[in-house]
Amino acid sequence: MNQPEMPSTVPAEISSDPLAPLFFPRAVAVVGASAVPGKRGYKAVQGLIEAGYRGAIYPIHPREEMILGRRCYRSVSEIAGEVDLAMICTPAAAVPGLVAECGRKGVKGVVVVAGGFRESGPDGERLEEALLEAAQRHAVRVIGPNTSGMFNLSIGLDLLGLRGIRPGHVAFISQSGNMLLSLVLEAQYHGELGFSIYVGPGNQTDLGFNDYLRFLGGEPNTRVVTMYVEGFRSGQRFLQIARGVSRHKPVVVYKSGATEAGKVAARSHTGALAGSYAMTVDLLRQAGVCLVQQSDEILPVAEGLAAWNAAPGARVAVLSDGGGQATIAVDRLVEAGLSLADLQEGTRRRLAAILPPQASLRNPIDVAGASDDNPSILAECLAILAQDDGVDALLLVGMFGGYALRFGEQLMGNEMRCAETLAEWRLKWQGKPLVIHSLYAPIKPPAVRRLREAGVPVYTSIEHAVRVLQALAERGQYLRRCAEPEAGAVSPLPEVREIFLRAVQEGRNPYEHEARAALAAHGIAVDETLLMRSPEDADAVLARFGDRPLALKIVSRDILHKSEAGGVRLGVCGREALLEAYEGILVSCRAHAPKADLHGVLVTPMAARGVEVIIGMVRDPVFGPVLMFGLGGIFVEVLNDVAFRAVPLTRDEAESMLRQLRGHKLLHGVRGLPRVDEARLVDLLLQVADFVHAYPEISELDLNPVIVHERDYVIADARFLLNPNMLPLEGEGDG
Amino acid sequence: MNQPEMPSTVPAEISSDPLAPLFFPRAVAVVGASAVPGKRGYKAVQGLIEAGYRGAIYPIHPREEMILGRRCYRSVSEIAGEVDLAMICTPAAAVPGLVAECGRKGVKGVVVVAGGFRESGPDGERLEEALLEAAQRHAVRVIGPNTSGMFNLSIGLDLLGLRGIRPGHVAFISQSGNMLLSLVLEAQYHGELGFSIYVGPGNQTDLGFNDYLRFLGGEPNTRVVTMYVEGFRSGQRFLQIARGVSRHKPVVVYKSGATEAGKVAARSHTGALAGSYAMTVDLLRQAGVCLVQQSDEILPVAEGLAAWNAAPGARVAVLSDGGGQATIAVDRLVEAGLSLADLQEGTRRRLAAILPPQASLRNPIDVAGASDDNPSILAECLAILAQDDGVDALLLVGMFGGYALRFGEQLMGNEMRCAETLAEWRLKWQGKPLVIHSLYAPIKPPAVRRLREAGVPVYTSIEHAVRVLQALAERGQYLRRCAEPEAGAVSPLPEVREIFLRAVQEGRNPYEHEARAALAAHGIAVDETLLMRSPEDADAVLARFGDRPLALKIVSRDILHKSEAGGVRLGVCGREALLEAYEGILVSCRAHAPKADLHGVLVTPMAARGVEVIIGMVRDPVFGPVLMFGLGGIFVEVLNDVAFRAVPLTRDEAESMLRQLRGHKLLHGVRGLPRVDEARLVDLLLQVADFVHAYPEISELDLNPVIVHERDYVIADARFLLNPNMLPLEGEGDG
Repeated sequence: MNQPEMPSTVPAEISSDPLAPLFFPRAVAVVGASAVPGKRGYKAVQGLIEAGYRGAIYPIHPREEMILGRRCYRSVSEIAGEVDLAMICTPAAAVPGLVAECGRKGVKGVVVVAGGFRESGPDGERLEEALLEAAQRHAVRVIGPNTSGMFNLSIGLDLLGLRGIRPGHVAFISQSGNMLLSLVLEAQYHGELGFSIYVGPGNQTDLGFNDYLRFLGGEPNTRVVTMYVEGFRSGQRFLQIARGVSRHKPVVVYKSGATEAGKVAARSHTGALAGSYAMTVDLLRQAGVCLVQQSDEILPVAEGLAAWNAAPGARVAVLSDGGGQATIAVDRLVEAGLSLADLQEGTRRRLAAILPPQASLRNPIDVAGASDDNPSILAECLAILAQDDGVDALLLVGMFGGYALRFGEQLMGNEMRCAETLAEWRLKWQGKPLVIHSLYAPIKPPAVRRLREAGVPVYTSIEHAVRVLQALAERGQYLRRCAEPEAGAVSPLPEVREIFLRAVQEGRNPYEHEARAALAAHGIAVDETLLMRSPEDADAVLARFGDRPLALKIVSRDILHKSEAGGVRLGVCGREALLEAYEGILVSCRAHAPKADLHGVLVTPMAARGVEVIIGMVRDPVFGPVLMFGLGGIFVEVLNDVAFRAVPLTRDEAESMLRQLRGHKLLHGVRGLPRVDEARLVDLLLQVADFVHAYPEISELDLNPVIVHERDYVIADARFLLNPNMLPLEGEGDG
Repeated sequence: MNQPEMPSTVPAEISSDPLAPLFFPRAVAVVGASAVPGKRGYKAVQGLIEAGYRGAIYPIHPREEMILGRRCYRSVSEIAGEVDLAMICTPAAAVPGLVAECGRKGVKGVVVVAGGFRESGPDGERLEEALLEAAQRHAVRVIGPNTSGMFNLSIGLDLLGLRGIRPGHVAFISQSGNMLLSLVLEAQYHGELGFSIYVGPGNQTDLGFNDYLRFLGGEPNTRVVTMYVEGFRSGQRFLQIARGVSRHKPVVVYKSGATEAGKVAARSHTGALAGSYAMTVDLLRQAGVCLVQQSDEILPVAEGLAAWNAAPGARVAVLSDGGGQATIAVDRLVEAGLSLADLQEGTRRRLAAILPPQASLRNPIDVAGASDDNPSILAECLAILAQDDGVDALLLVGMFGGYALRFGEQLMGNEMRCAETLAEWRLKWQGKPLVIHSLYAPIKPPAVRRLREAGVPVYTSIEHAVRVLQALAERGQYLRRCAEPEAGAVSPLPEVREIFLRAVQEGRNPYEHEARAALAAHGIAVDETLLMRSPEDADAVLARFGDRPLALKIVSRDILHKSEAGGVRLGVCGREALLEAYEGILVSCRAHAPKADLHGVLVTPMAARGVEVIIGMVRDPVFGPVLMFGLGGIFVEVLNDVAFRAVPLTRDEAESMLRQLRGHKLLHGVRGLPRVDEARLVDLLLQVADFVHAYPEISELDLNPVIVHERDYVIADARFLLNPNMLPLEGEGDG
């Protein structure tokens, strides 16, 4: 990767960004600078000097005259020139006062290292409030407190003093300072990989993940934004920003907490499954984020995405010099959802013309020893493959970089020429990523170094190489499909709001027939139901439904689990059975819950056999409204086979919810079940999304099951939970 | 890892092993030795000399007097002394003659490098036959042909000449020479990891995987046997040997072909799912093999198992110096099926006595900065944790090895003392593995080198560290449970064999009622069936089953898919319906298949609702008889959620088939389904295993579905496929 030139000023693209003075300051004060090596206030000054920061450096110290050859000041106010950024290394107690002083001096931002704020208890919380208050009063932006620090290597601004970090194009935002250390050491070992900006958000009192991501999205030295996240705060806003940034720059996130226990109690099915790691994964991917699920893949994936940004598709050509590596690569490619490109006849002919007869010309291509005395033939083969319209990306596996070591020094010139040719790949085959696996990569021979220097990623691990190809293909797919989802155009209806108001006034959630009526009012197909409130209603039921088999369900605000209360009867035929079932339900429910208010019994015709699915919505405290889709019944209960998307969502995103399920095949008609009309199901998902958008008072929604047939569906149960606080005040927002 | 001393003779443990002279030869001839650097026949001589082989080295060359300072011979027969092993580097054509000559000279084994044998076509095949014939006639054992070579570094026997490979305790058998190269380079970069024996089985004309595995199982310098396998040949024997070896020594296998397309056409459900990679995985694990599914995990896992062999359980204590690494480690541990050890009160008290108050004493334990100026405290904490009975294994994550680099050289002594203490772990806490993650591992600081030298594994990747802990725990579980499965004590019964003979004579497979009768004869509970061959049989049916709802199925040798032919009717009640259904089936089947022989209609009472499972058996061409168990219906068809085990199997292995299923929860009673009596189901699996053992003529068996209830089960369909060639000749083996 090329080292960026060190600019003396803020890049034009972000010159008006409010965070620019923090990350591209013209002068830096180090408050709490120290003359003692190893101390934070020493390291910061040392880091700035050693990294070659060209702006003014002002150590602030009560007594020292000079630190590391720089004149010390007693306080920020004593400095004559302008100061954009102050690094504050003092203990917590002094920080609010210092921030106020910085503000008076005109400092734009502070980096507060000290812990002892919110994370330490009530006293710290008060101190953090004071800090924020001082910052806001004086218009000072705050990184931290309790941050591991910040650097911007493109201008030599190194406030961490980690030393020896190479400037480059990977930005990193991390809730763990040790994760930065880990990536820095990995990059040092790598040798050619470097960083642009690092920031530890710390307590995120003022600035947080969202601000940094937005800023780095525009920062021109950053080609990929990488994050280690333990928890999101304003997740809904994060998704919005990530959507915007990832349209032009890859965003790589490692989210910890993959195995956190889910929430214990939830009243709806959707509520029980939401808030999980799986949900976070789905929502981040929806926003175009490349989610990395193994910590040792963070840097390799960042390297690959920084190099190529995206692949035009998932069809990979694999070139090998023989051996098990090609076999392993193919296994991993297929597991990763990528495919082996089918080579065109012309491509094979051109390969045949330069390769020996025993070479395998079917993908994976094996050069059959032809590279052993002429490594350059690999570059020739890759160029031929890159011209094939059916090839989206290329993977070279095997010994490249080690030919001279393995077969003799006489190959060095040839091998380096090959590396030179491949180093120009970016210019020639811009659209088609080239990823290289070399079993000699740990030894870092010259050819490997040359390739990496040119930004062509080379990996020791085939698994990492394939993971990068997967990330590139997924990103390509995202870029082709991404569109801004539109919030629903559906307005709330007075009659529906009336239903919700009545329910809230009665201190309950809507009855099932009310929920059905609300859906029906918005054109969502619900099958007809009748409410029996006395045996006499049987006439109306029979007049309407004839002798079709019927389902009867208790309607009661007090009975949540209808089956357990004996409140459900299925396959009821004829008057006698109907009356018996009606009475039976009431008797059972009274026995089960003597004090329950039994509102009536809901009657619907039995649904024909079909595929059971579940559609749900929760308002997640972090990510806002989230739609859930899954295969119902055993699938959701035993396998948790569900997909989540943030609302609003595009049609394409709704479609991807179906495809994502492990049991997707079930929608295609197996074991005598109908083949489902997926477009119809997607319509329903989008209708539900619009519906919940129109009624913020619906806090959770469960349509479970929806029984789907070849051409239509039946919503066999509908349940809404209301949040009375979200109901509009009377007269407000109706219509 | 300690370098083993170079023994001058064959280790006592294997002195009588027929392969000992090949791997511990007293003298080696290099036939086709070369004076040209880079040539194979040069590298072999060079490798032997450079690796310090102490036996005699005899280069064979038609003209040269000396090669690399060793006297050349014109032929093997010219050598005066005894020769145990000959490395043959000539082209293929000369090999059979040379093998014969070696045999006459008394050479015990040859390593044949040349390709151009079976893999190259009919001529090569004939050449390979000639080679084998010569070898067998003269009692010469053959490694290869078409092998990448062999080494035994404990005696400096290096026939590959790869140079600079460190002697150690990892043996490797690989069908890809490049995979060896890859591991060797990885180990070189690692610095402290070494190999004992390598062998490339090549075409496996004489010796193969099974022989090498057996030999290495006893070879005392080898602590772990590692394999890269593209395909098994005599898989059943391999499983037997692996079972034996893995009882005392870890066996690590990477099997390629994870994504190979399954077999296309199969007549039974089990047949369609068998032969898959998933089946191979299950069978290898059953034999105690540690199956590695990522190629970059091979060496890390081998290193960990070589160090510790096994863990007593799955409860891990995690010690960290803060940061995201502990969080990541916990995520990975839980994903890997390991658990966080619950620390005893005493353990926490003892930790509290040496750690600062802000330290977290709940697993994962965070020392809260206490190690920043005193790394040795980590060793103290680990010792306390190791004394806790609830802790089976320990994981240290974070900066260890880098304290002196990070916090100042003054810590070097302290950090090295800590490393020394941990290096003695093996002596003190033998039973409890210690695995270390260090973010400084890529830099290989002295403390990391010291630990690795002592055989304590240190990883850069948290993922690898946890993978090793998982392998150790799984191995521990295997060792606690492993037992030799006994072949079924069931003898074939004359009346059952009679059924099979009749079917074979009639050129068909058994009818369903015959299959049921065969199972019943061996005490496998089948519900009663009656065969209707005419409408008059309705009386007998009604007399027997009364007015219970019945299931009717066509019985015909010519109709495989009964439902599609209209050959199934369910829920039939009463005489009228029975007769209508009987005739209806015959009419439909005649219309569907006019020429079909309709044997009759089988009548059984409808099974009550229960959990549908499938039990099957195939005789796999590689692995022999294999039992399959899965959840039936949608689970097996949509998710392929099945488990395989080789027959015979222990009760414990049968139990593990149930636990392995993703949908295992379905057996515990969800959505109104009964909670299944698992012990009863395991009995059935073992009965089926015994049954198929007694009748080798059953080539495939499908019980699908078996409908399982709380206390019993109903085999709702049974299908056997017979292999007439496996039927005993008349009078043989009956009873």
